[in-house]
Amino acid sequence: RVDPALPERKPLPRADLRQRFIGLGPVAVFGASNFPLAFSTAGGDTAAALAAGCPVVFKGHPAHPGTAALVGAAISKAVEKAGLPAGVFALLTGQTHELGGALVSDSRIKAVGFTGSRAGGVALMKIANARPEPIPVYAEMSSVNPVVLFPHALAARAEALGAAFVGSLTMGSGQFCTNPGLVLALEGPDLDTFIASASAALAAAHPQVMLTPGIFGAYEQGVEKLGSRPGVTVAARGLVGEGCNQGQGALFVVDAATFAADPALSHEVFGSSSVVVRAPDLATLAKLLEGLEGQLTATLHLDAEDAEAARGLLPILERKAGRILANGWPTGVEVAPAMVHGGPFPATSDGRSTSVGTRAVERFLRPVCYQDLPDVLLPAALKEANPWGVKRAVDGVL
Amino acid sequence: RVDPALPERKPLPRADLRQRFIGLGPVAVFGASNFPLAFSTAGGDTAAALAAGCPVVFKGHPAHPGTAALVGAAISKAVEKAGLPAGVFALLTGQTHELGGALVSDSRIKAVGFTGSRAGGVALMKIANARPEPIPVYAEMSSVNPVVLFPHALAARAEALGAAFVGSLTMGSGQFCTNPGLVLALEGPDLDTFIASASAALAAAHPQVMLTPGIFGAYEQGVEKLGSRPGVTVAARGLVGEGCNQGQGALFVVDAATFAADPALSHEVFGSSSVVVRAPDLATLAKLLEGLEGQLTATLHLDAEDAEAARGLLPILERKAGRILANGWPTGVEVAPAMVHGGPFPATSDGRSTSVGTRAVERFLRPVCYQDLPDVLLPAALKEANPWGVKRAVDGVL
Repeated sequence: RVDPALPERKPLPRADLRQRFIGLGPVAVFGASNFPLAFSTAGGDTAAALAAGCPVVFKGHPAHPGTAALVGAAISKAVEKAGLPAGVFALLTGQTHELGGALVSDSRIKAVGFTGSRAGGVALMKIANARPEPIPVYAEMSSVNPVVLFPHALAARAEALGAAFVGSLTMGSGQFCTNPGLVLALEGPDLDTFIASASAALAAAHPQVMLTPGIFGAYEQGVEKLGSRPGVTVAARGLVGEGCNQGQGALFVVDAATFAADPALSHEVFGSSSVVVRAPDLATLAKLLEGLEGQLTATLHLDAEDAEAARGLLPILERKAGRILANGWPTGVEVAPAMVHGGPFPATSDGRSTSVGTRAVERFLRPVCYQDLPDVLLPAALKEANPWGVKRAVDGVL
Repeated sequence: RVDPALPERKPLPRADLRQRFIGLGPVAVFGASNFPLAFSTAGGDTAAALAAGCPVVFKGHPAHPGTAALVGAAISKAVEKAGLPAGVFALLTGQTHELGGALVSDSRIKAVGFTGSRAGGVALMKIANARPEPIPVYAEMSSVNPVVLFPHALAARAEALGAAFVGSLTMGSGQFCTNPGLVLALEGPDLDTFIASASAALAAAHPQVMLTPGIFGAYEQGVEKLGSRPGVTVAARGLVGEGCNQGQGALFVVDAATFAADPALSHEVFGSSSVVVRAPDLATLAKLLEGLEGQLTATLHLDAEDAEAARGLLPILERKAGRILANGWPTGVEVAPAMVHGGPFPATSDGRSTSVGTRAVERFLRPVCYQDLPDVLLPAALKEANPWGVKRAVDGVL
């Protein structure tokens, strides 16, 4: 941005003002347990931080230290090849929470990227806020990714929707942050058909080995807790696996009043577990959505005749979720300029940002303004001659 | 941003992705004591929040309740005239910290704008972070706005710089967040000339009534504390005023070692008080800058021959300050697209943002992505026909 000086302006002249973005400083990135590549060592946060000009200290997830070491070595080799300072990237490995805490507490670290559990993310937020100089934390944490099935869509293809839903639910044993853990629809025979179809598909679904014993244990506990809540019916379980850490799918059904009264039913259970809520009418369904916490995604299955009903819910969903999608499933996150992989708390710690897509670089930047600086001292992107040919807004006009 | 669907893409098709920004939700804005207009009821944060589509609950500063009431009534009238819902703007007045705390704690509030003291801003940050749903706080708090006088500039015009400096220092009794509270230069006869000139100007400076008894009391305490620190010399005091709350200017001089060893010397004293630091060499001066906390501004007085010396300091100053200016004074903040009125903690609570200039609207926005949404349900700005004629990036290209 360039606002040229206006020396003749009355009553006061305007100085020459130029603005660019610079990196926040060294970033601590925490690898996810469930994405050893895309959300880990050379994942989105590392790429965004490096693109922003920030060195990265990467804390590998103890679930896949070997992968982290291999990828880390490749990055270090690339850093060397490119002639960058060795400190541009560092890999830390360790099992303890103390290591991560010490990293976030270190006064040289200026921002944090994290993908993991709500408890882990909130703990890092607390540490970052308690520093003498608080720093931004981008923690992607917890989302049940509500799916709304509208009446006409359900009437047209309840059975197919049930089967497709289970495909999304059980993919990768449900270990995606965008896994559809909550389905809302109006009660009636079409929803019954959906539940029957989904139950049949899930009952035939083979279990998969989950990523770590810890994730498996938490999943088992979560499913047991959901099944034991008053008013919750088990619609179906997946096939029982042989061997250890087999994630057995789980589908629950509740009515709207039960769901509204029990916050535990809208907490994420990481794995192939989902809750179907039968709502008596659209107004109740809207209220249930209004009561949800922040989400990464919200999904609508709708036909043309459902548009008016959907229009009424959109203002609620926009306030709740980072991405709203129609007639698809939330698993699968495209890396693209318009993508938002983020959302209000507790989906993430900072709903103003995305961890996927080109806008992710912005999370590690801050603006600096240069006023009347001699051209020789201006950064290249702001020099009058624009030697880099950067697209610049002059007086606010591109 | 629009990324059209790529149905033929291999191995997987791409969905249609569209992104826009929406408001975070209702914003609590706290009026500043020192700016009853520009940083208060109808000030920058209120304007930015309304522009972002966020309702504003404004907490008036108890120092000027009448002004807040007058301006608030004008806004309410404008809201009515424009046919907006009455809840778009509300004014709260009160003396207690409890009122502000209750406002920031309220689950319906989604962001906070504040201009005031470091203690006040940090208290609001704590309340916001302790909420079940933490929210962003934009608090502008504390800055001493370092001024570096380079050798050639000082040799050329030490006397004129001294007089001009005191003009900036005493303007409005120094009650600006960008007041130059710290001057750094290399020791020697030119700096002595600057100090003598500034001292003479300050000794002849008439005091002004400060804004509130509280501000005056804190100023008196701050000046007394500065003057009593070991190694600090009082170079000059302004004229003594008659009547109450007269802010008497104060200029102190210290050497680099004393300054480096005593953090109290770099804390803001709100009013016409400033500290001149004599550095033995440029390397020491750079170290002193490196040791400073975050600042709103950093000012350089330099001639062409000083450019190389300044170039070495710029990477430090960029990391410390939101605005870097040359051969001027930091007081006076232009409202322009390239302005940054912000900076790293404790200048503000969030160095990624500015409270002045067109970019201020971004602090109250978050992105939402729409995937495969039927055109009829897309917001106007994202519809295929682009009925509003919005400038859009398609596949990342504007």
